[in-house]
Amino acid sequence: MLTADNTGVLHNFSPGPALLPAAVLEQAAVGIADFCGAGLSLLELSHRSEAYRRLQGEAMERWLRLYAVPEGYDVLFLQGGASTQFAMVPLNLLGAGDSADYVSTGRWSEKAIDEAAAVGVRHRVAASSADRNHSYIPRADQLDLDAAARYLHITSNNTIFGTQYPESPAVGTAPLVIDASSDLLSRPIAWERIGLLYGGAQKNAGISGLTVVCIRRDLISCRGSGVPTMMRYDTHAAADSLYNTPPTFAVLVLDLTMRWIEEQGGLAMVDAANRHKASLLYEVIDGDGFYEGHAEPAARSLMNVVFRIPADRALEPEFVSRAGEEGLIGLEGHRAAGGLRASIYNAMSVEGCRGLAEFMVAFRGRFG
Amino acid sequence: MLTADNTGVLHNFSPGPALLPAAVLEQAAVGIADFCGAGLSLLELSHRSEAYRRLQGEAMERWLRLYAVPEGYDVLFLQGGASTQFAMVPLNLLGAGDSADYVSTGRWSEKAIDEAAAVGVRHRVAASSADRNHSYIPRADQLDLDAAARYLHITSNNTIFGTQYPESPAVGTAPLVIDASSDLLSRPIAWERIGLLYGGAQKNAGISGLTVVCIRRDLISCRGSGVPTMMRYDTHAAADSLYNTPPTFAVLVLDLTMRWIEEQGGLAMVDAANRHKASLLYEVIDGDGFYEGHAEPAARSLMNVVFRIPADRALEPEFVSRAGEEGLIGLEGHRAAGGLRASIYNAMSVEGCRGLAEFMVAFRGRFG
Repeated sequence: MLTADNTGVLHNFSPGPALLPAAVLEQAAVGIADFCGAGLSLLELSHRSEAYRRLQGEAMERWLRLYAVPEGYDVLFLQGGASTQFAMVPLNLLGAGDSADYVSTGRWSEKAIDEAAAVGVRHRVAASSADRNHSYIPRADQLDLDAAARYLHITSNNTIFGTQYPESPAVGTAPLVIDASSDLLSRPIAWERIGLLYGGAQKNAGISGLTVVCIRRDLISCRGSGVPTMMRYDTHAAADSLYNTPPTFAVLVLDLTMRWIEEQGGLAMVDAANRHKASLLYEVIDGDGFYEGHAEPAARSLMNVVFRIPADRALEPEFVSRAGEEGLIGLEGHRAAGGLRASIYNAMSVEGCRGLAEFMVAFRGRFG
Repeated sequence: MLTADNTGVLHNFSPGPALLPAAVLEQAAVGIADFCGAGLSLLELSHRSEAYRRLQGEAMERWLRLYAVPEGYDVLFLQGGASTQFAMVPLNLLGAGDSADYVSTGRWSEKAIDEAAAVGVRHRVAASSADRNHSYIPRADQLDLDAAARYLHITSNNTIFGTQYPESPAVGTAPLVIDASSDLLSRPIAWERIGLLYGGAQKNAGISGLTVVCIRRDLISCRGSGVPTMMRYDTHAAADSLYNTPPTFAVLVLDLTMRWIEEQGGLAMVDAANRHKASLLYEVIDGDGFYEGHAEPAARSLMNVVFRIPADRALEPEFVSRAGEEGLIGLEGHRAAGGLRASIYNAMSVEGCRGLAEFMVAFRGRFG
């Protein structure tokens, strides 16, 4: 990395594709030079080769082990990102006459809901936080549930508005479908109510181009009709995610990222570190009113800290620019929430968060 | 690379993911360490960053320039491989009542035809080479064309059976849709009759996880209904292929591969080299009857040389194993065609083909 300031490190708070652990980058480069002593780059290795199949099988097992997924679930390695899942979920899980419930907690939930409409399935919005610019997560007792819904879809972390479900909602009887793109592999999960969890890999789980789906086996059969083969979960489950050529390099980076998480002590340790990192920033935000968090405290995200400078919004670009000079980059907020945003996924160091917290204090001292 | 024999080089004849030029591998590893002096790995760079957008824009322009694509076409960078295009093509190009023609020249054509059936569109098989185990390419006068077809779909190169269209067929009035997955960027193309050309990148154009689509602009609007947003060409065209996070690393490798082709002198030079390389092998095959090519000479592929040892098929595994000992790997044929297959994409060196030709002669000398 470039030496960007006196500490010699550039801290990247970009919302994704995002920071990767240094060890993962080094090992990914090694995989390009020579993979597993096969004498070939992983990039050149057939996905039908034994060496690649072993890698993919190990990555799937590592996923199940790290997340402590109970018996009865399959892991699928797919392409197309969460945006493709927005269509695959209703097309596969809903048959003629079926309906699904959705909770809207921001832009990505809305996209999932819009896509259910685009592919023409029956669906309902069980609750939405749009009334307060998505600054909160609806409580279980605020959900207007359809007892016959085939699933309840939620977005576990909302990158734009900086909110996150503290835990999966325990409501109704329909299985949960969770878009976990932005908090994948960031904390342990209670699987009991989960039917399907999906996410793009490019924030916490590696690089773009790989989508991981973890699905309860009874949901794998496609209930829709005329669904393209590549959009059917049963296609990929039956072929161990080798129906067509998978994004082999992204699978390697996922596996390296999970190995790194294991070295940190697993998801409980990563979760503890994430809580600590986020607390460093929220503490400054809660300081004396110079900064204001977008999310209600109970709904605060551990992944994306969204805040503003309420007394003088014109200071926000100044904040971004001066932070950049100190090697703290990627802090612009999304245009929908405005203000500032620090994305602090697994790979962000405590040092990086401490550096940002100190910068925030110094900035407040100068302009507050 | 490993030192596998006296020449010190391992030659990989795998059908794909396949060999990449050494310079591309080196530069890809550099992109992982520090991309464009941005101080960050490309793997960590936001797809919204200026540095990434410049890379992607340059890669698209380089594609249009290398292929000498005339005005009026867009390049799209997508995910999901040719298997996803098998569905996207009919879903986008066919409206209610429309129909399309397909030519079957092997396994991949059949998959495209099966997918048209799976998504429920009207389609016809204009010709098939199945009667002689796909050892030839139907001539223009053998095609039973529907004058009202919205397009004619062909597979320009057939990896399994080792056949290739010598040039695009000039028949009928419907635009051609070409699956060029296995001969992408391997030779100049006459664009006049082409409506849409697509291919996965993992053979000649880089690594798996990226699909390139080159589409005439009048075909971009979706004629189907209820098509998932991610499966619509107009979604990606309107967003400059940044509707969602693209496979950023695969785009880098595509660009590096195209730069390498430019350094070779462009597609005409690469084509000349490919013809020379293939001729080294076909010359031995045509030698004295010990080997037999699967494809009719007029339909021979420059990318995949498929042959057998007719007098004693039991010698074929022996051939694979002894070749492997000399560093010539990946020569097993596909189970559908049987025998032996040497995949000699752009990145395969003349030296590699000469080495294989010499091995074939020596093997014949010993066992013939």
